[in-house]
Amino acid sequence: MERQRQFDKELDSLKKKLVHMAALAETMIDSGLAVLVQRDAGPAAKVREYEQEVNRLDIEIDEYALTLLATQQPVARDLRFIVAATKINGELERIGDLCINITQNSETLLQQPPLKPLIDIPHMADLARKMVRDSLDAFIAGDPLVAQAVIMADDRVDALKDQVLRELLTCMISDPRTIERGLALILISRHLERIGDHAVNIAEDVIYMIQGRDVRHPRTPKERPPESEL
Amino acid sequence: MERQRQFDKELDSLKKKLVHMAALAETMIDSGLAVLVQRDAGPAAKVREYEQEVNRLDIEIDEYALTLLATQQPVARDLRFIVAATKINGELERIGDLCINITQNSETLLQQPPLKPLIDIPHMADLARKMVRDSLDAFIAGDPLVAQAVIMADDRVDALKDQVLRELLTCMISDPRTIERGLALILISRHLERIGDHAVNIAEDVIYMIQGRDVRHPRTPKERPPESEL
Repeated sequence: MERQRQFDKELDSLKKKLVHMAALAETMIDSGLAVLVQRDAGPAAKVREYEQEVNRLDIEIDEYALTLLATQQPVARDLRFIVAATKINGELERIGDLCINITQNSETLLQQPPLKPLIDIPHMADLARKMVRDSLDAFIAGDPLVAQAVIMADDRVDALKDQVLRELLTCMISDPRTIERGLALILISRHLERIGDHAVNIAEDVIYMIQGRDVRHPRTPKERPPESEL
Repeated sequence: MERQRQFDKELDSLKKKLVHMAALAETMIDSGLAVLVQRDAGPAAKVREYEQEVNRLDIEIDEYALTLLATQQPVARDLRFIVAATKINGELERIGDLCINITQNSETLLQQPPLKPLIDIPHMADLARKMVRDSLDAFIAGDPLVAQAVIMADDRVDALKDQVLRELLTCMISDPRTIERGLALILISRHLERIGDHAVNIAEDVIYMIQGRDVRHPRTPKERPPESEL
């Protein structure tokens, strides 16, 4: 009994580490976008600082999970929880990398005048950040419905990405001076779309953890291509 | 003793599944590139067929690893091996997704005349495929030196990606009719670069598995940005 209580505490501690990591990732999305939208290089420093912290947590959480597996030899639900934690950990670390990419592309854009008012990209960022938060909420609450909603939200992010591409291509073709800036914005929209994809991966891990049912690769590629064509 | 022998057999079977999955991923890289280079839509069908198989293996390997963790309660090296297997599994599945992306972008390009002779992109594909193979060889042989060589090779792929970007931007700016094709090629080069990144992730997992030493995030972001700026 005492042993189980101790183990529950350790699982709780694992949960807290992941929630902290996800909060850092959310702030990184905001700060990366601030460089782009407010045209201010300042917040880039925070993105880089937090990425270091996220990388540190990535290693720490993996070590912690491995230690729990070795010392507690959990089964059933606890085992699935710990394995899910290591997967979610990896997804959050990649989200951190993508925020660095967004920041780098945004910094490049500061060197030239703005191309056009930004509407869809900030909207994509809001959706992607919400997906990250909701996927972690689903994990903490063990709620498959919240996880399912994250999976559904991905279609909106994908649609916005396609819209951004079409608009910017038109712009680039009509005025070649906009090509470099257009490309940077297209890449930023793709980084945001990939953040959404990582949130979907987390949501799928959560559903698997709860239901023991694998929701990955549920549809044929015809119905759900990994990424839309150009 | 009998129990250990049975467990060794199961670990061997896990290994074989991953090797099979990696072989499929390598063929997918080749077939995706064949669509691009030979301007033949035919091989696209193989990429899609194999992606289904890779997705099936992804689930199968995760289930298998989870069962081994629950029933054998391994410790130390065996535990690290099984956890590494689930991570490598995830990397290979993503490589499969990227091959679908490459194929889609290549199919788009078939609708227009070729932009220029392709040299750097096939070279990138050769390097990336070799990185995938070598990272799996490192895993099977438990060889940290092979894994280290994969990590080193990534710099060459990144350099080629930058070269492709510079060349294509010049082309797009001088002739706006090439913008869409140039963008498709830039995206293909980025998909290949990400395949290389996944091979690096596998190599890092292998080193960690062997040495219990974490080589992830070894350098500061200044020395090794996740992706070069535009």
